Amino acid sequence: MSRPVVLICLESPHAFWRLSAQHERSLRAAFPDVDVRVATAESLPCHLPYAQVYLGWRFKSEWLATVPHLKWVSSPAAGTDHLPVAEIAAAGVALTRSYGFHGRPMAEHAMGLVLGFSRGLFLSQRLQRNRTWWKGDLAEEFFDLAGATMTIVGCGSIGGHLARTARALGMNVIGVRRTPPSAPRDGITWIRASAVHEAVAVADVTVDLLPTTSATRHFFDHELLSVCKPGSLFINLGRASTVDQRALIAALDSGRLRGAALDVTDPKPLPARDPLRLHPRVLLTPKSAVFSRTYMDEAVAFFADNLRRHLADRPLNGLVDVSLAHSPLSGG
Amino acid sequence: MSRPVVLICLESPHAFWRLSAQHERSLRAAFPDVDVRVATAESLPCHLPYAQVYLGWRFKSEWLATVPHLKWVSSPAAGTDHLPVAEIAAAGVALTRSYGFHGRPMAEHAMGLVLGFSRGLFLSQRLQRNRTWWKGDLAEEFFDLAGATMTIVGCGSIGGHLARTARALGMNVIGVRRTPPSAPRDGITWIRASAVHEAVAVADVTVDLLPTTSATRHFFDHELLSVCKPGSLFINLGRASTVDQRALIAALDSGRLRGAALDVTDPKPLPARDPLRLHPRVLLTPKSAVFSRTYMDEAVAFFADNLRRHLADRPLNGLVDVSLAHSPLSGG
Repeated sequence: MSRPVVLICLESPHAFWRLSAQHERSLRAAFPDVDVRVATAESLPCHLPYAQVYLGWRFKSEWLATVPHLKWVSSPAAGTDHLPVAEIAAAGVALTRSYGFHGRPMAEHAMGLVLGFSRGLFLSQRLQRNRTWWKGDLAEEFFDLAGATMTIVGCGSIGGHLARTARALGMNVIGVRRTPPSAPRDGITWIRASAVHEAVAVADVTVDLLPTTSATRHFFDHELLSVCKPGSLFINLGRASTVDQRALIAALDSGRLRGAALDVTDPKPLPARDPLRLHPRVLLTPKSAVFSRTYMDEAVAFFADNLRRHLADRPLNGLVDVSLAHSPLSGG
Repeated sequence: MSRPVVLICLESPHAFWRLSAQHERSLRAAFPDVDVRVATAESLPCHLPYAQVYLGWRFKSEWLATVPHLKWVSSPAAGTDHLPVAEIAAAGVALTRSYGFHGRPMAEHAMGLVLGFSRGLFLSQRLQRNRTWWKGDLAEEFFDLAGATMTIVGCGSIGGHLARTARALGMNVIGVRRTPPSAPRDGITWIRASAVHEAVAVADVTVDLLPTTSATRHFFDHELLSVCKPGSLFINLGRASTVDQRALIAALDSGRLRGAALDVTDPKPLPARDPLRLHPRVLLTPKSAVFSRTYMDEAVAFFADNLRRHLADRPLNGLVDVSLAHSPLSGG
């Protein structure tokens, strides 16, 4: 009997998102009864017809016609909106996303953005070249994180990690979820998605971690942004589609929002003269919230655990349910 | 017998560093047997001759000739280098500094500065207006705080608070102190000041919290900065005198240091064309690390506790020892 083929294609311009030779060796050593094949984008078509398991950033629906043995597609990403979820499901192939290790770098990123505003650091960077002294400006602008409230909208496992970090800095945390957990967790006060208005009205910082679904499109619209707490911050580390960017600019210009930080925008990148690029109270990062030098170490460990489950016919972690993938406020 | 006079002069351009009417009321209510007098800079000379206790930001040595009843000068600040410590001691007047509440805002400030560099946020703010996309730049620049090492030089009570915050973000913390505590504390690995070279050589982030003393002048000189870990950050929230700024610029320009953040500079403010102002990898803040909206609430509580001690003839907290005030590496 031939060994099952596990096909891996993890290419990226960034080393920390590629499979290293060490990862490859450790997978081969851990799974001697598996035929581990590492493909490039070019060699991939030659290997797909033999694959029982596929691990990769991308998966195209047209590949489904060439994979008679494929049982499982594993993505190292947390989100699935770049994948043909419905087509994979229709072909009877399992699809898993990864989780448990995105929260740590995203919590660092989110707290850096929050502190950059709350401690007047972005203001200082703007003023240090042009102004003699700006202590008075900063004295007006800053706020204490200890005792302030962070509301996390779409509060799943990533939100849980962020909540623990924010709590360590003395913040109160409200988690908004379609279905809040029944038991307390991570010191979070849970609020049902239907009451999101109340949750953003008391938040000094609102963090958007919503996934892309039909129901989350422009979730943060004029109406919701206009009930945000005056002087609060809005931070989006989720998906660009969940924010009406015109409404966001209006909320900044009206003075309702103190500032905004966006790791995701529509389009990506923004046009050179887009008002969000030029706004003095907007900080843009290039979809880097999830950057981590240990990303692939953790993604490979997650995959190896799941591969053991697959080979033993046990349930996979991170299975993507087509219906759930399109539900609002599942968080990620 | 007349009530002892407690004279308070807490003026500041910033509301959070002034005594509020509420603070005044609560002190009067808590100490009905004390004559609490609140002075302005103008009215101060009229009240000084009656004061047994003085609470204020400033104290001038010439005032000592006008205060026959003065027993105790209480400063709401953590540092004492702006006060005539030796003259106050020579007059037989006790001097106390305040502690226990500076660490929280300073930890927020320090972590914001560290994350601003580690997550590429200052880089993003510079590039978002001028560059289409900078994900590749950021992928080169960023580093993970989890697993990284922070060395705190002059690690006293403020350093302890910072250490707890850094530990909550997954960092390893080395504390450098003249006399390290004998028992473990705050998850800090302690290193004696004489071995500071070893402590900065392994630090991804070095935080300078040294006080001004004769022995700390230019403590961070060419020699010490040249053994800092390549690619590391240097952050000074202590005193400007502890850093040789020319050596710091050289360490930045040689590429040894990834970046530097300074809350204190010499002179203050820096000249308009000073290279530290213009350096792309330097972030300056206007001595705002200790900014907190609750500063005076906590300073008044600290003072009230000490006033109870004073009235009961019990030892005061925060007593400044002239000899210690001029010792190196006491931290603050």
